[in-house]
Order: sequence, then structure tokens, then C-alpha cells
Amino acid sequence: MIRVLFAAKPKDWDEYRDVLPDAVARAGIDAQIVTEADPETVDYIVYAPSSSVQDFTPYTRLKAVLNLWAGVENVVGNPTLTVPLCRMVDPGMTAGMVEFCVGHTLRHHLGMDRDICRGDTDWRPHVPPLARDRKVTVLGLGELGREVALALRRLDFDVAGWSRSAKDLSGIACLSGDEGLDVALARAEILILLLPLTDATRDLIDAARLAAMPEGAFIINPGRGPLIVDDALLAALDVGRIAHATLDVFRVEPLPGDHPFWSHPGVTVTPHIASATRVETASAVIAKNIRRGEAGETLLHVVDRAAGY
Amino acid sequence: MIRVLFAAKPKDWDEYRDVLPDAVARAGIDAQIVTEADPETVDYIVYAPSSSVQDFTPYTRLKAVLNLWAGVENVVGNPTLTVPLCRMVDPGMTAGMVEFCVGHTLRHHLGMDRDICRGDTDWRPHVPPLARDRKVTVLGLGELGREVALALRRLDFDVAGWSRSAKDLSGIACLSGDEGLDVALARAEILILLLPLTDATRDLIDAARLAAMPEGAFIINPGRGPLIVDDALLAALDVGRIAHATLDVFRVEPLPGDHPFWSHPGVTVTPHIASATRVETASAVIAKNIRRGEAGETLLHVVDRAAGY
Repeated sequence: MIRVLFAAKPKDWDEYRDVLPDAVARAGIDAQIVTEADPETVDYIVYAPSSSVQDFTPYTRLKAVLNLWAGVENVVGNPTLTVPLCRMVDPGMTAGMVEFCVGHTLRHHLGMDRDICRGDTDWRPHVPPLARDRKVTVLGLGELGREVALALRRLDFDVAGWSRSAKDLSGIACLSGDEGLDVALARAEILILLLPLTDATRDLIDAARLAAMPEGAFIINPGRGPLIVDDALLAALDVGRIAHATLDVFRVEPLPGDHPFWSHPGVTVTPHIASATRVETASAVIAKNIRRGEAGETLLHVVDRAAGY
Repeated sequence: MIRVLFAAKPKDWDEYRDVLPDAVARAGIDAQIVTEADPETVDYIVYAPSSSVQDFTPYTRLKAVLNLWAGVENVVGNPTLTVPLCRMVDPGMTAGMVEFCVGHTLRHHLGMDRDICRGDTDWRPHVPPLARDRKVTVLGLGELGREVALALRRLDFDVAGWSRSAKDLSGIACLSGDEGLDVALARAEILILLLPLTDATRDLIDAARLAAMPEGAFIINPGRGPLIVDDALLAALDVGRIAHATLDVFRVEPLPGDHPFWSHPGVTVTPHIASATRVETASAVIAKNIRRGEAGETLLHVVDRAAGY
């Protein structure tokens, strides 16, 4: 019998309390899953970085921390965490992210908003270019960015991707490094941000990089809020350099009611819904990693502390 | 030297006058393409049903009529037309239709409108189901419907298709006949209409069939306006049986300014833009068919007059 501490918000526990024990049992693990425990008795922590557990020192027999979220920026630098930290790579979350990104890319590509938000009765046909003539750039080619780029490619978009380390994806122009970023931005009629938040990516999309994008480009940010410098984006929207930004993530969430993003006509605010961890698929991933840990196998999706993700 | 009459609107000629002769020459055909000619000298007519040519009797050496549009309902019943009539099957048009249908399906699936048309600053996360848990039905599995159904399937939607004659498409629940239509409608959380307009499909989506759909369903009609009974749709929207309809085609186009579709909050009017014939790809298709005709080969996409498409 091993002991798993579920360290997240009570509302998270409401979602997982029935599903996670089932998934763990199905993986053949004899485990007790609890929301409170003597730290010295805990083998694994299923973890949300917003939980009250911030000091891992008392967890003397801890084998791994299994993050419930894809983003680890609020735990990766914790100096008390010395065991492996695993990101959540949930096939349900990936699927949802693909749907969000493909949907909003098509929305901007087709110019849907003029018809959706119509205030007149003018019949003005506007035929958009075909996807094959539309250049989309995905920044970040991790689990999420890769699947988004490939899904867009299957719809015949002209897709480039950029990542820190060089990648190779069929049909995608894969770029890396600083020069690669310049090329990626210069062609980005639609730019999708799916980078992790690290010291290297914070404030990446600043005034200079916005100025390097094509006139009238679109930005979709389902990644992390601090990837973009808010004031620089607002300035670029005001002069039409950026035609529209669909933002799902923000420096402060919920986005404060007085933030100019709410009322700017060039911004669509979505309330961090691009993709959620899905309880069933995420529980299966957690169970699989615990089984691997108990069998002495390598854990999946272990965070590289130096890279920050 | 053969003679091809381009019988369409002057604005169509403006688009084709440079591209079509090039395409025909590239196909190895020595042809003169004109907008006026002695009828007895014409070998082929490239045709828009809205053109002034309505009596084909004087065209005594005519070999075929090559329609510029996918829809042939305004020419197929013309008793003076006795030579083969070919529908336009333009890969560019198909690609555009796929993009429109996938885009609006994702829009309704994700519930984008609430964020796009937002009038407040409320942060209310709403995570949609995954595509694999969303049932989409495509009515019509011709060139366009088939490609739309397959593209939605590649995004993992749960797709059924219905057509007059039985079809077989990988991953798609293919239905046909009256019973099949009942099944297709009963599951249609999102319904896409890509049927040709014939005596059998006119007014197909009437009050009874709307009542057979799931509560809160979405309808996307990029096919033909008369497939739907307008008043029945408005009544179904008023009671919420249909949550929203995105309509691209209408009984009268342009849609008259006083039509209730313009102002109904449950209707998005798009001005017949779901897909246009693309001049380059369509010209290549026309050239290919003329080449085949001159070589004595079977023409492509010949209309079945009895079926009406």
C-alpha cells in the first residue's frame, strides 16, 4: 500500500475523488489517495502549484511530484523540491488545445467576426484566401505546439514552427534559435503562442518583435500571459500592425475588470479555457506514472529543471 | 481551332479573361475563347446559369456545357439543353468549403460567440466537450460533403453522413434512405447541409425534421437556401430547439434587408462566401474537360439529369 497526497484545491478534489482512485486501481496499484497526511508517510504528491503545499522538506520518503497542469513555472524553481517533477501531458488537454487553436485560426483566417458581430444588413461578399496561401507560425513545438502545427498542416495551412531546440516535423518549416525566431515572426500572418514560461520566454513578444510581424497579423495566445508585453501589444493593436489578438492567458487571472484588454475592439478575451486538464485522461496519466515509479521504470514527462520545463 | 463561348456575367469574364485562355493553352488545346459568337460556331459553352444564354437550340454544333458553379438547379431542367452538362468540381472550391465548414463547426462546438461578442468583463470559464464527444451530421456526401466529413473526422469529431445513395467512408457513419435520415437528424448536435437542390431535397429541413433534432442543436447551411423552410427554422430558433443557425445561402440572394434572418440573434448570415469557384483551379478543370472532350474521352462530372445533379 502506497500513499498518494492529492495537494490541490478542494474543487479539484471534487472532480478527481472518484475518478483518480479508479484509474490507479486499474493500473494495478494498491494505493491510498488522501488530501491530508503526515508528510513522512507520503510516496507521491499529485500537485497543483496553487496548493498550500509549498515546502517539500518534510516529505522525507517522497518519490515524485506529479503536476496536474502542463505549466510548471510556479513550482520548478522551488528549492525544497529535490525529487523528480513531472509535467502533465494529458491527451485530453492536447486534443482540446488543438480544437481551440484550429478553431480560432480558422476564425481569423476566414474573417468570421464581421459576420458573427454584424450590426447591419449589408450583403458584402468577402472571399478569404485558401489555407494553403495563409502563413501560420506556431511558437513552441512541445506536446501541444507540435499537435497544433500538424493539425493546421492537415488543413493545408502553410505552417512554420519555432522552438528552442531544433525539431523535425513532416510538412512544417521547423525553425530554432534567434535567427529562426526572426524568420518565424516575419512570416506570421497568424501567430500562435504555445511556449512554456521560462526566463528565456518571458516578455518574448515585445514591441520590437511585434514590429517584425506582417502588417495586420493575428495573435492567438493560449500559452502563458507573460509571453507578451501587454502595453506593447495594445500599442500594436492601436496602429493596426496587429489586427486582432485572441488571448486566453494573462499576467493576472482572472483578468482584472479594469484591464484594457476587456474593452479593446482588437482583443478577444477567453477566460483560460483553451484547454483544461480532463479528469479521466489525466487520471490515467497519473496512474501510469505511479505504476512506472513503483516498477522502477523512468517516469514520463520529467521536468528539466535547468530549462525550466 | 475550336470555339468556346464564355456565357456568364461581365464581372466573371473580368476574372477569367486572362486565366482561362492560359489554362486551355497549357492543356494543349488550340481554342478561341469569346464572350459573343454566332451560335452555330460554338463547340463548348463555359456557363453561369445566370447568363443571358437560356435557349441552347441555336447551338447546333455544341459538344458540352461546362458549368462554372457547383449548383446546376437553374440549368439542369432546361429542355433545350441536349448535350452533356458538367458540374464544376473545383479543388479550390472544395478546399474553401472544408475551411468554412470546419471553422464554423469548431466555432459552435467551442461556443466562441460568447467571447467574441462579449459585452461584459465577467470571467466565466466554460470548457466545452472534446470533439470526440460531439456528434456532427453532414447531409450530402458528394464532392463537398465527403471532404467536409473526412476533415471533421480527422479532428476527431463523431461524424455521420447521409446521402441519397449508400456511401462508404472510412470513420464516418454513412446513412442513406428515409430511415437513415431519421437517424442522421436525431444525433445531429451540429448539422451541416451540403445537399444539391433537387425536387427531393427542396424544403427537406421542415418543422417535423427540425423537431427530430436534439434540443439546442446548431445548423450550418452552405448548400442551398431552399433546403430549409425559413419560417420553420425561425420558429425552432425562437423556442431554442435550434440554438443557432449559420446560413450562407438563401431563397433570394442577396438576402433582402427586411428578412428576419438578418436581425435574429440565433442566426449568423454569411453572404454566400462559404466557398467560391477559384479562378485558377476552376480554369484548369474546364481546360481538362475540353481536352477530354476533344480526345473523345468521357467528360468529368457530367450531371445526371434524372437525379438533378
